[in-house]
Amino acid sequence: MANKLKIIPLGGLDEIGKNITVFEYGKDIIVVDAGMGFPDEDMYGIDVVIPNISYLVQNKKRIRAIVLTHGHEDHIGALPYILREINVPIYATRLTAGLVELKLAEHRLLDKTKIVTLEAGESFHAGCFEVEFIRVNHSIPDAVALAITTPIGKVIHTGDFKIDVTPIHGEMTDLARLGELGKEGVLCMLCDSTNVERPGYSDSERKVGARFDELFKGCDKRIIVTTFASNVHRLQQIINAAYKYKRKVGITGRSMENVMRVAQDLGYIKVPDGVIVDMNKINGLPKNKVAIITTGSQGEAMSALYRMAFSGHRQIEITEGDRVIISASAIPGNERTITKVIDELFSKGAEVIYERMSQLHVSGHACQEELKLIHALVKPKFFVPVHGEHRHLCKHAALAQMMGTDPANIVLGENGRIIEVTPRKIKLGGAVTAGKVFVDGMGVGDVGSVVLRDRQLLAQDGMIVVVMTLSAEDNSLISGPDIISRGFVYVKESESLMDEMRRVTLESLESCHAQKISDWATIKSRVKTNLSGYLYKTTKRSPMIIPVITEV
Amino acid sequence: MANKLKIIPLGGLDEIGKNITVFEYGKDIIVVDAGMGFPDEDMYGIDVVIPNISYLVQNKKRIRAIVLTHGHEDHIGALPYILREINVPIYATRLTAGLVELKLAEHRLLDKTKIVTLEAGESFHAGCFEVEFIRVNHSIPDAVALAITTPIGKVIHTGDFKIDVTPIHGEMTDLARLGELGKEGVLCMLCDSTNVERPGYSDSERKVGARFDELFKGCDKRIIVTTFASNVHRLQQIINAAYKYKRKVGITGRSMENVMRVAQDLGYIKVPDGVIVDMNKINGLPKNKVAIITTGSQGEAMSALYRMAFSGHRQIEITEGDRVIISASAIPGNERTITKVIDELFSKGAEVIYERMSQLHVSGHACQEELKLIHALVKPKFFVPVHGEHRHLCKHAALAQMMGTDPANIVLGENGRIIEVTPRKIKLGGAVTAGKVFVDGMGVGDVGSVVLRDRQLLAQDGMIVVVMTLSAEDNSLISGPDIISRGFVYVKESESLMDEMRRVTLESLESCHAQKISDWATIKSRVKTNLSGYLYKTTKRSPMIIPVITEV
Repeated sequence: MANKLKIIPLGGLDEIGKNITVFEYGKDIIVVDAGMGFPDEDMYGIDVVIPNISYLVQNKKRIRAIVLTHGHEDHIGALPYILREINVPIYATRLTAGLVELKLAEHRLLDKTKIVTLEAGESFHAGCFEVEFIRVNHSIPDAVALAITTPIGKVIHTGDFKIDVTPIHGEMTDLARLGELGKEGVLCMLCDSTNVERPGYSDSERKVGARFDELFKGCDKRIIVTTFASNVHRLQQIINAAYKYKRKVGITGRSMENVMRVAQDLGYIKVPDGVIVDMNKINGLPKNKVAIITTGSQGEAMSALYRMAFSGHRQIEITEGDRVIISASAIPGNERTITKVIDELFSKGAEVIYERMSQLHVSGHACQEELKLIHALVKPKFFVPVHGEHRHLCKHAALAQMMGTDPANIVLGENGRIIEVTPRKIKLGGAVTAGKVFVDGMGVGDVGSVVLRDRQLLAQDGMIVVVMTLSAEDNSLISGPDIISRGFVYVKESESLMDEMRRVTLESLESCHAQKISDWATIKSRVKTNLSGYLYKTTKRSPMIIPVITEV
Repeated sequence: MANKLKIIPLGGLDEIGKNITVFEYGKDIIVVDAGMGFPDEDMYGIDVVIPNISYLVQNKKRIRAIVLTHGHEDHIGALPYILREINVPIYATRLTAGLVELKLAEHRLLDKTKIVTLEAGESFHAGCFEVEFIRVNHSIPDAVALAITTPIGKVIHTGDFKIDVTPIHGEMTDLARLGELGKEGVLCMLCDSTNVERPGYSDSERKVGARFDELFKGCDKRIIVTTFASNVHRLQQIINAAYKYKRKVGITGRSMENVMRVAQDLGYIKVPDGVIVDMNKINGLPKNKVAIITTGSQGEAMSALYRMAFSGHRQIEITEGDRVIISASAIPGNERTITKVIDELFSKGAEVIYERMSQLHVSGHACQEELKLIHALVKPKFFVPVHGEHRHLCKHAALAQMMGTDPANIVLGENGRIIEVTPRKIKLGGAVTAGKVFVDGMGVGDVGSVVLRDRQLLAQDGMIVVVMTLSAEDNSLISGPDIISRGFVYVKESESLMDEMRRVTLESLESCHAQKISDWATIKSRVKTNLSGYLYKTTKRSPMIIPVITEV
């Protein structure tokens, strides 16, 4: 009896980010992508969110490869955390490998990691799997889809993709190969659902180049362009425009500098000699002979553009002599941070060009008609929508059904839920450990739901610590109660409230004493209950109340 | 020598919300609008933001009237806080007055407040000012622009407006009257900048009605529609569609019920008899004979739609038998909360119709061509863009200049900055007290920047309280150090870290003792410095550290 192919997403479903999918057959496992996610706004103090990889650690002896579809953080960002726990070879295209090496070097994991680079069109074996890289267009070069041959049939994983008929570098998504595989017969497809809500087609990257040309031509100001650091083709077009209109280019912002270096070293970006100039020399040039490419397209607080806007950048001060171009769209959730930066740039007198209408950005993900095209080409027997929030997955399932896939053959997965595939059937099976792990500073996973919930409570109404020193002999009050509050009220103007809190605390202690209650847990509990009741009644606020008893 | 007219925005510039503008001439003051704002995401625990009204309180004897342009919260929400401090008559249209009465009744201010209602076309005197109400279209009925006649000339304040050529109720914006005033000569115009980034015209409200008709026609599911509670015309269209397709209507959500009641009582919404049904009876009807209108179009956590989605609503449980229509756009900042609710509705199996493309919402604010039309009609000598963030004000100033207004006659104001107007000149003068005041629970203004900053620090990395009991005689340690932490690490799994913190504290105390340092401020400071240094080095986190000394 044949084994089942198990497809187990550990992240990336019902969320943005953390893309990671396990393919398992018999004794062999391969992992596709290893992405991180960014914290939601209520994940206070959290730097990065990674997938729970317990399942990988438990099965580490069976993992033959980690295969990466492209170099975006939501596909490679969790690698360092994974490679600390398990040592597995990485398979990637050259640019992806270059970005991975940068990341692993920062985490001091480079030496112990084996990285195998392949071009699109090439294949490798990993256990019982054969994996072929298939060229796709995306908002980063060297992105691939995967054709995974398993003992029971072929699985196509599109990775993140679009169809760009006039790409800046290289060729269009390899529709020919996808069509060929479709004709041979594809058992299952996992496909990018990001833009399934959008009708039509995504625009070609080349359109943005045309717009840059318009904005550079005849411009007499200093030009500052921000875009996603990883969008190498966008950087190429900015450099092309700068070169055409005889401007030198400065690059600022760590991630931008890193990506430029890797992309240049590997030949993914062509920069004419002398065009790029050190940022420390930029201010010596006439403003209308300068173009600066900078990080900060999402209004990120530490980015170079943010620092320029808020007068914190070492070399660049924004003035009316600047034309700032925001060549990006807002990742959902970032709309306010971006407009704050734009407002600040306006108030410094800059001309800011940022409207959605102005063709300054095109999406890297396939829209509805492109998705239909892929479904029509690949004609998979089974379909699993991936890379989207829940509504995207639902809509993509509906699109697949409209394209002719039997609804019984469409599975809406969940992170951690095993999708069992046989030649005849696809269904949801049991679950493995999965979920989010929070990274805060150097700690991985030590900030969990309890700590987060405490931070949320503290953020909401602050805290009050009540310190009472009791006698060891008879629990009588020796010193205190001292009330320390932060984030609740402005203490210097709330003396009477502080006095009242002391009074309520004393009354609670006296009532415990009168009832001969001597165990600290009960005493603290009573103080807390009475204080929080009093405070809610008078202020309608609920600070965290922490009674502390010390004994002498 | 003539007085200057002083126009003093106390809110609403460079921000969304808190619209309030003072007009002052000689001994007389009138106040246009009294709005609140919603907290930004980093204003933890804050319920509502209101303008600092010190200037009004200082000058209360000179305030003749508060004039309201329309009933949105960002124009009336601060009224209760203002009326607690000063007693001034309110002038408003009937629907606006109805909504104000509701609000003041909640705050127990209704009895002491005089409210005068006027229709569009009517005028009143307040000190040396004459104020005329001019009908405009907006996303709430009974919105007006103001023509304020001052001793030195007429000022037009557009309020919030659009031009709806086919309004649901009443007539189009009174372009005739605005044009008449333009011909007579308008000294200064203050105009709504909200949609100045958008080219073209806003769509007519009637288009949404057409879309509702399509969505109701032949639908076999229960229909649930969410929209802004104050959009009475939208509610009318939903009720019209329900009636046409023989559905009963249930209303759920407190603000929606309130607005419906006021609008019905005052005749702004016409509901055929028997169409509206009590929510407790809704479940007794066949699903395809029911339409529910609900709060929650912004994904607000306590709204009825949110509770429905997350299984917390008393009467309504979402199933596949539901078609949920989101007839609203996302107010900037709310995008993620809305998509979270949509995702949850999808996971409950509902059909959710929400796309921007689907003509389910039109804006209530004039877009570029409408703004140009108003400028061309009114032809003011001086221009002050209002009701927008900084980039909106800048772009509106550019639009005015393009329309022929002399740039010297265009002023970009700031909250608190006096705009001085004479027949010949407009310029920025000095400043008055202005700014944001935070309302948290029952406290108004007691949560200021210190408390907020503390909440932000607590949210980021939590807190550690170090309690040390020292001897009164020689400052030797009698008890402790006890370490209490919240929001920092999960204490039960961090025993060794807690031990290390005790060690660092003890060493700090010992070093103070050895140096004969006995003042508590220095002892606490040393403990804090050493602990935070140690913690940052080991965890890369910076919890708030609060050393507490008690003495026995």
